Amino acid sequence: MIIDCHGHYTTASAPHTTWREQQRAAFDGGTAAPPYPSISDDEIHETLQGSQLRLMDERGVDLTLFSPRASAMAHHVGDEAVSAEWTRRCNDLVHRVVGLYPDRFAGVCQLPQSPGVPIARSVDELRRCVTELGFVGANLNPDPSGGHWTAPPLTDKHWYPFYEAMIELDVPAMVHVSATVNPAFHATGAHYLNADTTAFMQVLDSDLFTDLPELRFVIPHGGGAVPYHWGRFRGLADMLGRPAPDTSVMRNVFFDTCVYHQAGIDLLFDVIDVDNILFGSEMVGAVRGIDPRTGQYFDDTRRYVDALKLPDADATKVFEGNVRRVYPRLDARLRAAAS
Amino acid sequence: MIIDCHGHYTTASAPHTTWREQQRAAFDGGTAAPPYPSISDDEIHETLQGSQLRLMDERGVDLTLFSPRASAMAHHVGDEAVSAEWTRRCNDLVHRVVGLYPDRFAGVCQLPQSPGVPIARSVDELRRCVTELGFVGANLNPDPSGGHWTAPPLTDKHWYPFYEAMIELDVPAMVHVSATVNPAFHATGAHYLNADTTAFMQVLDSDLFTDLPELRFVIPHGGGAVPYHWGRFRGLADMLGRPAPDTSVMRNVFFDTCVYHQAGIDLLFDVIDVDNILFGSEMVGAVRGIDPRTGQYFDDTRRYVDALKLPDADATKVFEGNVRRVYPRLDARLRAAAS
Repeated sequence: MIIDCHGHYTTASAPHTTWREQQRAAFDGGTAAPPYPSISDDEIHETLQGSQLRLMDERGVDLTLFSPRASAMAHHVGDEAVSAEWTRRCNDLVHRVVGLYPDRFAGVCQLPQSPGVPIARSVDELRRCVTELGFVGANLNPDPSGGHWTAPPLTDKHWYPFYEAMIELDVPAMVHVSATVNPAFHATGAHYLNADTTAFMQVLDSDLFTDLPELRFVIPHGGGAVPYHWGRFRGLADMLGRPAPDTSVMRNVFFDTCVYHQAGIDLLFDVIDVDNILFGSEMVGAVRGIDPRTGQYFDDTRRYVDALKLPDADATKVFEGNVRRVYPRLDARLRAAAS
Repeated sequence: MIIDCHGHYTTASAPHTTWREQQRAAFDGGTAAPPYPSISDDEIHETLQGSQLRLMDERGVDLTLFSPRASAMAHHVGDEAVSAEWTRRCNDLVHRVVGLYPDRFAGVCQLPQSPGVPIARSVDELRRCVTELGFVGANLNPDPSGGHWTAPPLTDKHWYPFYEAMIELDVPAMVHVSATVNPAFHATGAHYLNADTTAFMQVLDSDLFTDLPELRFVIPHGGGAVPYHWGRFRGLADMLGRPAPDTSVMRNVFFDTCVYHQAGIDLLFDVIDVDNILFGSEMVGAVRGIDPRTGQYFDDTRRYVDALKLPDADATKVFEGNVRRVYPRLDARLRAAAS
């Protein structure tokens, strides 16, 4: 079975995205947002069949962990109430996708984060998504300000109430930022990768996983700059008096395979233990074109992983086993479906 | 000849660093800073012989492009006058190092940047360092705020007066941030790498080098996350309607070899043209320990490059030719010394 741990619903239908624009405008204008539109099942089918599902079929991907569009989370927009309503709408829409294609998708939720608002106030939505909607994980934004990085580091006690809920519910978080309003940062070309690197260094230089040994983070985009600079991080751990990352944070941290060329995937598997790598593509996502050098989609990461010719047991880990281990609620769902 | 393009004077003597603390305290207290201390040649010899020069000798490095300690630039400290005086002191000290060891060092200057202060006001110090002190390049901080990223992107017209001076003087800039006051970012473990990635993406998505075709940037730390995500950047260029980076920004952008493990160096040389890679170690710098896996210093990057067994012509480019081409004033100095 091939499970993609990292897919966003980037092709949601126009009424959904138009409503978001109306919601923003209403907030800016000090008026009430219009009612959320009715979206038919047919509309949802249509947004998926020509893109996400077609590409999954072409690439032989059986199931995708599906979450709302990351760049559209935009936790900095409006206020806490605006973020909360948008988040509920996005999660509900993903829930409908999963309901229509229960064999192809499992839900991962957005959170109603908002700059300056305690993360504890995201626990209810996490709980709703996991216990009522059957979601298997969450996307946690370490920078709800959208590129100003005003939130405390992920290792700050500020975040612990949310982590405790994650542990209680037995779900991991993918650490994933959203759009940036800071003109210094291109979202998918800099902010995303920077956030991955930033989060890794935060946890490396902390006691977070000593405090909360059951906490699990997926750091996407192949871990940002981390595998390429693995020697730097090993050396920094040493200088900081921290244990080697292989034997400490890598018990709790996992990288996906959203690295869009063969040499990058080769490096990832060269330096990171296969138990810490989850197959992912971020498809349909940041990079949608075809690489003229290969004639294949840049983000068809399965090709790069296949080209490694991993031993079968390792390939099974990367494509299925690791993600079922990191997302136990997915595993339970798949076991129940199989029995 | 082996030229290290990236060394900082991290071992400057105590009177220099103590004076900086006094300067900070005086600014905070609203008083005048004490006079800058007298530092003897013997003190300078002492700070180098046991560390930088010893390590250069051990590693077979003939000459280092030497600049003030990057993390201590701290352009966010005090105000423009504080930054300007500290910068002059730092550059003058590097000038003394070069004067004492003209065969081993060439100067690269710090700039008197300060948050919100136009970069045009750094031109005079650049000019002084290049024309009076014989420096061959500059370190340009894209984020003088120290982790708040309040400056316009490097592609903004704001920076052009400085770039025009660089072109007139025929010197490149290494894009190098300093310490961070934003608790989200570890300086050497996140902020440095993020800045490299950020700067690359800024120039990729801009007309900067069309406007200023003679401008040259060295992006250190192996280009941040860029080579590892080279497919992503190629794909983003395509999506943004920009030319392929190989044939556009890589005419003006160069990466150093400050990547502290073999797999990372392998990747760098696999995806980046050898003409764009300058040997560098950042020694004595971010990571000072010995890798227990190899028994060698993490930052002894010459070993990783040597292990590539490059053809002689390519090795000569990386260790000498490229840096002489990117830093023509270094080339001129070396030619003059040889004749």
